[in-house]
Amino acid sequence: MSELALPAKPASLSVSRRLISEGLGTLMLLAIVVGSGIMAERLSSGNIAIALLGNTLATGAGLVVLITLFGPLSGAHFNPVVTLVAVLRREMAWSVALAYMAAQTAGALLGVWLAHAMFGEPLLQVSAKLRDAPGQMLAEFVATFGLIGAIAGAVRFRPDAVAGIVGLYITCAYWFTASTSFANPAVTLARSLSDSFAGIAPASAPGFVAAQILGAVAACLLFDWLLKERSAP
Amino acid sequence: MSELALPAKPASLSVSRRLISEGLGTLMLLAIVVGSGIMAERLSSGNIAIALLGNTLATGAGLVVLITLFGPLSGAHFNPVVTLVAVLRREMAWSVALAYMAAQTAGALLGVWLAHAMFGEPLLQVSAKLRDAPGQMLAEFVATFGLIGAIAGAVRFRPDAVAGIVGLYITCAYWFTASTSFANPAVTLARSLSDSFAGIAPASAPGFVAAQILGAVAACLLFDWLLKERSAP
Amino acid sequence: MSELALPAKPASLSVSRRLISEGLGTLMLLAIVVGSGIMAERLSSGNIAIALLGNTLATGAGLVVLITLFGPLSGAHFNPVVTLVAVLRREMAWSVALAYMAAQTAGALLGVWLAHAMFGEPLLQVSAKLRDAPGQMLAEFVATFGLIGAIAGAVRFRPDAVAGIVGLYITCAYWFTASTSFANPAVTLARSLSDSFAGIAPASAPGFVAAQILGAVAACLLFDWLLKERSAP
Amino acid sequence: MSELALPAKPASLSVSRRLISEGLGTLMLLAIVVGSGIMAERLSSGNIAIALLGNTLATGAGLVVLITLFGPLSGAHFNPVVTLVAVLRREMAWSVALAYMAAQTAGALLGVWLAHAMFGEPLLQVSAKLRDAPGQMLAEFVATFGLIGAIAGAVRFRPDAVAGIVGLYITCAYWFTASTSFANPAVTLARSLSDSFAGIAPASAPGFVAAQILGAVAACLLFDWLLKERSAP
Repeated sequence: MSELALPAKPASLSVSRRLISEGLGTLMLLAIVVGSGIMAERLSSGNIAIALLGNTLATGAGLVVLITLFGPLSGAHFNPVVTLVAVLRREMAWSVALAYMAAQTAGALLGVWLAHAMFGEPLLQVSAKLRDAPGQMLAEFVATFGLIGAIAGAVRFRPDAVAGIVGLYITCAYWFTASTSFANPAVTLARSLSDSFAGIAPASAPGFVAAQILGAVAACLLFDWLLKERSAP
Repeated sequence: MSELALPAKPASLSVSRRLISEGLGTLMLLAIVVGSGIMAERLSSGNIAIALLGNTLATGAGLVVLITLFGPLSGAHFNPVVTLVAVLRREMAWSVALAYMAAQTAGALLGVWLAHAMFGEPLLQVSAKLRDAPGQMLAEFVATFGLIGAIAGAVRFRPDAVAGIVGLYITCAYWFTASTSFANPAVTLARSLSDSFAGIAPASAPGFVAAQILGAVAACLLFDWLLKERSAP
Repeated sequence: MSELALPAKPASLSVSRRLISEGLGTLMLLAIVVGSGIMAERLSSGNIAIALLGNTLATGAGLVVLITLFGPLSGAHFNPVVTLVAVLRREMAWSVALAYMAAQTAGALLGVWLAHAMFGEPLLQVSAKLRDAPGQMLAEFVATFGLIGAIAGAVRFRPDAVAGIVGLYITCAYWFTASTSFANPAVTLARSLSDSFAGIAPASAPGFVAAQILGAVAACLLFDWLLKERSAP
Repeated sequence: MSELALPAKPASLSVSRRLISEGLGTLMLLAIVVGSGIMAERLSSGNIAIALLGNTLATGAGLVVLITLFGPLSGAHFNPVVTLVAVLRREMAWSVALAYMAAQTAGALLGVWLAHAMFGEPLLQVSAKLRDAPGQMLAEFVATFGLIGAIAGAVRFRPDAVAGIVGLYITCAYWFTASTSFANPAVTLARSLSDSFAGIAPASAPGFVAAQILGAVAACLLFDWLLKERSAP
């Protein structure tokens, strides 16, 4: 049995419904991340910690809702490295995985534009916010390592609580990682197209994505061993 | 079977008890939304993000309590578009639905006045806060679409967690939508009668309500398809 | 069967253990309410909304912990009007109820003094904070009415979630009531002996207590009818 | 049967996997406590209450995740006094307990250094933040007493909710104790090596640790009696 199984294996659903679930869920996630960032920055009179509190509250709460709604339909990955882990664990074929990643990326871009439209901002933007300190790449490694670990632990020990655990993990990770925890290549790409609170300059994105992939693979290896079932005698 | 069924179908309760449940619940909801808005604005020294944090915390927590208490009695709609969805799904007759909407509206108005009385404000007020940017109407569409989707997903996949999911959704939506997520025509009408943090100028209300109805109908159509049960072979 | 039954009826526990549970729980509750108020006021640079956020977070979270721990031992009333409701519902004899109220009051006073000791404040203080606007008495009526309703609903429909519902209710009520929701005569008395953020001038206390009793009795009558079991045909 | 049993007794796991679980969990806990403290202090423009809000949110949420993940592997003590209580209750041999404490301490130190590395700070630091008011030692006694009580109550009455109760307890205790609730000797030692928001001067550490041990022993004695099973007649 797999220890990193994703919470749902809705193999009986058509692929088209699963892809729409991934795309729509990631769209909503980015609308939440970027939209609440804009709202928070506009209202917080320059106190960035207050802005981050609002951004955190919205993202954490929103993730619980989205995973509850879309988890049973598509697994609610919303994240190419989560899908990558499913492939590494031989729970998903590459062909479906690539379609998932495309749906996630498309949804993420649309979500950013939806946030811009709601707040009356130009749709097309490019972030100027450099995030390139070496510590931030380490932080993305840690953030993604922790995310995969949190999912693995919840799926194994509390499968009914995966949505809540992921929401709490991101709530925590927005604050303890120096990068505010992107931990998601589709989110990273999409946030490079928003020159707002949640943005990241395109020049900083490749380093983030590389660190995320490394963190996910490391977590996959470690938790595979740590959560291994005891062999029956 | 219905995918958008509301959490309770207390058909065996008398209609009068169900209407009192809807009315009292909506009264408490508006006392919470408007009262916490006044409290937050008075205390926050002009930092609107801090005020919104307090308003969000109170509304999200309050919704969980109210839906837990009134859900098994009347379904805890507190919201004419939620009742409308029940009619569209043929789970409720128009005659009962119209009585629900009347009870919700009456309760909402009384709740606003209760908040004003507690805070020593004039009971009768009219809001001067224009909320008429086109993005805000889009935001109300998105907010209501998401609310109906969140309810549908929770009812279908986690019926014991509907109260928590709705509380988390509104916690999130207060921040990611440019309109701070009214998502409720009775709430919109009632908040037009409070010239406080949570208010909305009467001139802005019709656009909000129209967007809310469109968002609810769109969600009803999409999630009806997406959450459709697999047909037994 | 009773609809307002308290979550635990540990009749088989000795009365002395139940009274120690009530006293120790109320002591911890007041240490939390007053201690977090002092901490919040000291750190918040005069922004009262920020102070109230910290005070709210601590009180709401603390209530969940205390009710989980002490609920199965003594019912975790921590509140003379909750004990009064138990008597009105004929679930508790007056003799035990008076002992509960004495334990709650003693615990509350000790809790205030523990908070003062931790923060290096003089133990014996009297609050100078007048809370005597008419709206604040109405607010205490509403706050206590809502508390009894929330308990009644949780006990009836979600008995495993009473601790969480009470914590969320108080989180909400700190913000939406003009009085910041004391809703508890023992708490009111004890807070009159702290000249800090959470204090109340002794002159304002009797009005608060009267409003609390009226709110509790009103809730008892209304929810008794509203939550009445359907009679078996 | 024991009333203070820890949530998991994974005796069938190898000791090496249990120690890695304790060490990695405590590492993540300290990275969260110290990292979110640095983030919060940098962003909050000098308003310490706002910084503490961020630090609290991250720590509380993180604890729920970590205990969910590591609890079934090693019990998720992350804390030498929790391990001490297990020994006092004869649930763990001293030999294993000492190995646990070593793993916790090593993990805690590594976690502090990971936080420093992520935020581009010098790895090796010594805190200059004196925390030596007598009230703070009383506060550490209370904080640890409450922590052991909360764990004991959750394990006894809601074993599925231990992670949530511990997260909520610490959320509360960061605010109501004058010491911001270290309640953990390994955490105290490690935080003495960070000259940041969460730091403590080495000179203040021994008093904290002594108070923590006394608080844990007192809680062990009291709750042992209070939570004692009724003897079968």
